[in-house]
Amino acid sequence: MSETVAILGGTGAEGRGLALQWARAGLALRIGSRDEARAREAAAAVRAATRVGEERVQGLANAPAAAGADIVVLTVPLSAQIATIKTVREHLRPGAIVVDATVPVGAALGDRIAHIVTPWAGSAAQQARAFLPESVRLVSAFHSLSAVALAGLEHAVECDVLVCGDDAAARETVRRLAACIAGVRAIDGGPLANSRFAEHIAALLISLNARYKVKHSGVRFTGIDPER
Amino acid sequence: MSETVAILGGTGAEGRGLALQWARAGLALRIGSRDEARAREAAAAVRAATRVGEERVQGLANAPAAAGADIVVLTVPLSAQIATIKTVREHLRPGAIVVDATVPVGAALGDRIAHIVTPWAGSAAQQARAFLPESVRLVSAFHSLSAVALAGLEHAVECDVLVCGDDAAARETVRRLAACIAGVRAIDGGPLANSRFAEHIAALLISLNARYKVKHSGVRFTGIDPER
Repeated sequence: MSETVAILGGTGAEGRGLALQWARAGLALRIGSRDEARAREAAAAVRAATRVGEERVQGLANAPAAAGADIVVLTVPLSAQIATIKTVREHLRPGAIVVDATVPVGAALGDRIAHIVTPWAGSAAQQARAFLPESVRLVSAFHSLSAVALAGLEHAVECDVLVCGDDAAARETVRRLAACIAGVRAIDGGPLANSRFAEHIAALLISLNARYKVKHSGVRFTGIDPER
Repeated sequence: MSETVAILGGTGAEGRGLALQWARAGLALRIGSRDEARAREAAAAVRAATRVGEERVQGLANAPAAAGADIVVLTVPLSAQIATIKTVREHLRPGAIVVDATVPVGAALGDRIAHIVTPWAGSAAQQARAFLPESVRLVSAFHSLSAVALAGLEHAVECDVLVCGDDAAARETVRRLAACIAGVRAIDGGPLANSRFAEHIAALLISLNARYKVKHSGVRFTGIDPER
């Protein structure tokens, strides 16, 4: 893919895992963080692990990372979602694709229920929509991918990704982005409002990880052909 | 399994599919319906399809079907859930396992969102709990199984079932019941409150069926060993 991809929250486990996969696939990446120094450090680690040059993977503060990027992927905790969007929204180019990967959970407590938070808008993605300029296209994806599985470049990631959004062309671009990760199948999840399903499945996987004492449970959909 | 299993709403597509699978597995079944004549008709059809005798699969009105059964499976629409429970609850034997399979959706409308209804209790299963006697053990399961896949006895059902409930022994019994269906893996979903995940996944599969123009999408969990 020729698009420039910025990963905000790219120093977290999920963002870094995506960065590793996409760097290996040869994408032009910007790793964004509130803290530029940490972003540079993460970018250097990703370059070292994937043996790509400095021109392919850069570390930047969130706002310059997002500025002018074709695709901006948001991998921050729910508690940081709105603040991060506010930091970058005036830097987003018109037509840019913003990908929300926010999993709206509180802590996994007691008997290992991953407690879902339901934003008033219906889902984390719909909440993001309300804070983004109309000129950008919002897609939700990547919630279900285990950070541990993403970091294990030697194994395919045994997981499907639901891609939801109201702009079909943007959804298609994000499906191509998902397909850059070996093992991942991108499933057309339909409109953005369906993002709640992807978000809830991610919460379920967190609880299955706890119950089965693993770190990389995933999900596959059967009976459908995502290549149709 | 030696337990007597009653399927309430057993003349519906989902209930009948489960009945076919369990009749083939040799279980003692009662197919329950509001309408006894329809229940008898469904039982005769199940016996004919699976070539089992009248003593193994009976058709009864819901209340006598539930009376004294070891396991009572509820496969009715959300709109009939509470009324059905009220019809049978005084007939349930203490210690019986009630299995709720209710998928809390409204119609799939417009752009093919399967509209989820959120009961005040948090999930359809938790709503059922509130109307059941304390002496019965409630488990939620089977939401994700396509009625069309269940009816196709010549193919394995490519789908996992999340089994949720607050009584570990009852959950284990229902996992054995699920494993009687060829191809199905039973996943320990944890406490009853987690039933919302199973219910939402079923709603998602309804919407994937519409989007991909199939009738039997399903779900598999990867990275975990349900036999552990």
